[in-house]
Amino acid sequence: MTAPDPRVVEHADAIASVRREVCALHGELLRWNLVTWTSGNVSARVPGTDLMVIKPSGVSYEDLRPESMVVCDLEGTAVDGRHAPSSDTGSHAHVYRARPDVGAVVHTHSPYATAWAARGEPIPCVITAMADEFGGDIPVGPFALIGGAEIGEGVVATLEDHRSPAVLMHGHGVFTIGATPTAAVKAAVMCEDVARTVHLARQHGPLERLPQEHVDALHDRYQNVYGQRTETP
Amino acid sequence: MTAPDPRVVEHADAIASVRREVCALHGELLRWNLVTWTSGNVSARVPGTDLMVIKPSGVSYEDLRPESMVVCDLEGTAVDGRHAPSSDTGSHAHVYRARPDVGAVVHTHSPYATAWAARGEPIPCVITAMADEFGGDIPVGPFALIGGAEIGEGVVATLEDHRSPAVLMHGHGVFTIGATPTAAVKAAVMCEDVARTVHLARQHGPLERLPQEHVDALHDRYQNVYGQRTETP
Amino acid sequence: MTAPDPRVVEHADAIASVRREVCALHGELLRWNLVTWTSGNVSARVPGTDLMVIKPSGVSYEDLRPESMVVCDLEGTAVDGRHAPSSDTGSHAHVYRARPDVGAVVHTHSPYATAWAARGEPIPCVITAMADEFGGDIPVGPFALIGGAEIGEGVVATLEDHRSPAVLMHGHGVFTIGATPTAAVKAAVMCEDVARTVHLARQHGPLERLPQEHVDALHDRYQNVYGQRTETP
Amino acid sequence: MTAPDPRVVEHADAIASVRREVCALHGELLRWNLVTWTSGNVSARVPGTDLMVIKPSGVSYEDLRPESMVVCDLEGTAVDGRHAPSSDTGSHAHVYRARPDVGAVVHTHSPYATAWAARGEPIPCVITAMADEFGGDIPVGPFALIGGAEIGEGVVATLEDHRSPAVLMHGHGVFTIGATPTAAVKAAVMCEDVARTVHLARQHGPLERLPQEHVDALHDRYQNVYGQRTETP
Repeated sequence: MTAPDPRVVEHADAIASVRREVCALHGELLRWNLVTWTSGNVSARVPGTDLMVIKPSGVSYEDLRPESMVVCDLEGTAVDGRHAPSSDTGSHAHVYRARPDVGAVVHTHSPYATAWAARGEPIPCVITAMADEFGGDIPVGPFALIGGAEIGEGVVATLEDHRSPAVLMHGHGVFTIGATPTAAVKAAVMCEDVARTVHLARQHGPLERLPQEHVDALHDRYQNVYGQRTETP
Repeated sequence: MTAPDPRVVEHADAIASVRREVCALHGELLRWNLVTWTSGNVSARVPGTDLMVIKPSGVSYEDLRPESMVVCDLEGTAVDGRHAPSSDTGSHAHVYRARPDVGAVVHTHSPYATAWAARGEPIPCVITAMADEFGGDIPVGPFALIGGAEIGEGVVATLEDHRSPAVLMHGHGVFTIGATPTAAVKAAVMCEDVARTVHLARQHGPLERLPQEHVDALHDRYQNVYGQRTETP
Repeated sequence: MTAPDPRVVEHADAIASVRREVCALHGELLRWNLVTWTSGNVSARVPGTDLMVIKPSGVSYEDLRPESMVVCDLEGTAVDGRHAPSSDTGSHAHVYRARPDVGAVVHTHSPYATAWAARGEPIPCVITAMADEFGGDIPVGPFALIGGAEIGEGVVATLEDHRSPAVLMHGHGVFTIGATPTAAVKAAVMCEDVARTVHLARQHGPLERLPQEHVDALHDRYQNVYGQRTETP
Repeated sequence: MTAPDPRVVEHADAIASVRREVCALHGELLRWNLVTWTSGNVSARVPGTDLMVIKPSGVSYEDLRPESMVVCDLEGTAVDGRHAPSSDTGSHAHVYRARPDVGAVVHTHSPYATAWAARGEPIPCVITAMADEFGGDIPVGPFALIGGAEIGEGVVATLEDHRSPAVLMHGHGVFTIGATPTAAVKAAVMCEDVARTVHLARQHGPLERLPQEHVDALHDRYQNVYGQRTETP
């Protein structure tokens, strides 16, 4: 047994809190039918540190506990936890290094979105729900092998040019980012929702994108007006 | 803290009852898979008043409680409740102003119905379940931006010419109306059900509408004979 | 309050037992996603009598209790129960009159099967599961209006020429029959299952029916060997 | 009552453990929507013996208990248990005789995979999840009648030439194998998952297989690196 990483000691409370949140959000992936067996994962940055918390590799969702989550540094090296971290850790870590505004990353193989990813085809912005959440098309990123940072590089490069917090990695599946863990999970949930609706819509005829000025207006409103701004407790 | 609106004091019991009913009916939207994350809402008129009760904006379904519902007047201005009301409040309010017979409004992005809405295509009345509940095709209303009353105006104008309690708003989703909250929710549930069945049916061949006299007979019977007329308690 | 029908008094125990069974089997319709809101029903003959038990009209599934089931004679007239019986009672009753071997009838609008019914197209027997349960294609019956016995006449006439316990009523939905309530419900469940699989299969290419001798062998085995013949308690 | 088979007495503890595991894994088939009514089954070899444990024929999933599982020898003859074993017992037994490395067999009619099976078309390896779990296409085996060992012979012959633990039996459904019961169930779950995604993907355009070197790299990594290698308890 080696001595614990000093960062893990110093930020013990923040880490415990993120472990609980990341663990619980895997339940949302199941609830909204985004994952099968052990096929998706959530990670989150520990605020104010160079650490992240991520799902252990190949552990089933019902066996996940806050303490089974793995703490890694932003090179993807595990610094706390009894399990090996997700195969996608290197790519999550890359996103946190490249995008200081990103607080969480989600990866799924949700079926309708992965169907678009298999063809390498962006989801066109044809309904208001897409304009709201994604501000336009959901773009496609390059094919990349699992294991290193290559997928993360593709995620970052693709999202640079888009408002969308979701990217369809060619031949693979979905990655989403968010300022908070809930925001990244919501993006993954809504990505599958619109992937399904647009898939279904196009089965019976061609579709037209919403006019750009409507997309802009909807996205601006949804990002700035929708939801609860100030809530009296 | 300002003084409570006098109408809220006067109709406290009726409001409490409608808050409970509207809150509970959001559970039906989830149960029948009509909504994703926070994407649909139910409102109801407080009987005998110029008030309505509606879902708060962007609050997740499992966090909804009767007391989180927002009471608004029929201009869409919140008069009671700690949360900001749904983004769609202005449109719901318009429907209540224009249609005194309407006691409830439901809005969803349910996937099959929204697929028809994305194409701007009415659902043709090809099965008896559609004749029963909708009395013909489910019509399409105009594209309109969220936020004001414009969607509500499109809903009212479109439904004027139809027996259907459901309308597919182009590029957006479903609105339904009903004399009671349960009736409006039922219309939303059945709209998705028939949207799916007719979508599937047309995937393997062309469809023919039911003859008008059959549609008339079925709708008349369903509206006037089906169900429990008088029930001994 | 009129005096109870003497048959209801005489067969009180048998009726109570059938009420419980029919009530519980509506839960299977929900569980296997065959029904929406109040759209399907189960009935059963009370063994050794000229009575049947059927779902009340327009009552939601979670409100069903054994005592809410309605007892009717085989003309479809209610003889016991506080509710109005299903709109389909006249057709169920016709089936019991015409087919003494039938102990139960189920009706649904399950989505994939109703999609075949909307087109008026039989489901071709292309997989072993269809040969097992249906012994060939699932046939299509005529369009008929709800309310009287006309649908029941179509069900009986169509099934006369087939091994299948299921029939797709044109433009309407599914009716199944069985010697027991469980058998009729199973037929409805399997009808939707194979309707979905064959629908999906044909989306990517033409299908070939299984050779008749294989269908015969599979059906014979499934009806006579499959399951538990004698079970030591 | 005849005397118990001596192997059943000798291996009582191992048999009890496999009965529990096989019983519980049928719950996974239901949970992941692979089975309808009684349409799928799991079996497992009792380690270190020439015995297997399999589902009883035609018993519903919620009635399964560890003690309702049937113990058979590897000729498919029941040696312990009160029920008749699955109709597929002869084929499961053949797989265990022919493949000493196989510890469990699963059979389902899961809808998307059975749709590919109905057409007799292999699922092409177009997404990383397929390369991971199946190492290439999921192949098609011959049509064979239920009851004897013929299906098992087709399973063994087809899988000999593939890395895939899953085979689509033409006109029938899915068989999967695994070193452990969990591995075989996982293969069945992932087979349906990728069958659905690739079905959906191809509905809107042609697909290209992943390059062979990528398939090889992904499969090697998934089989040898993914998951938890050594886990501190």
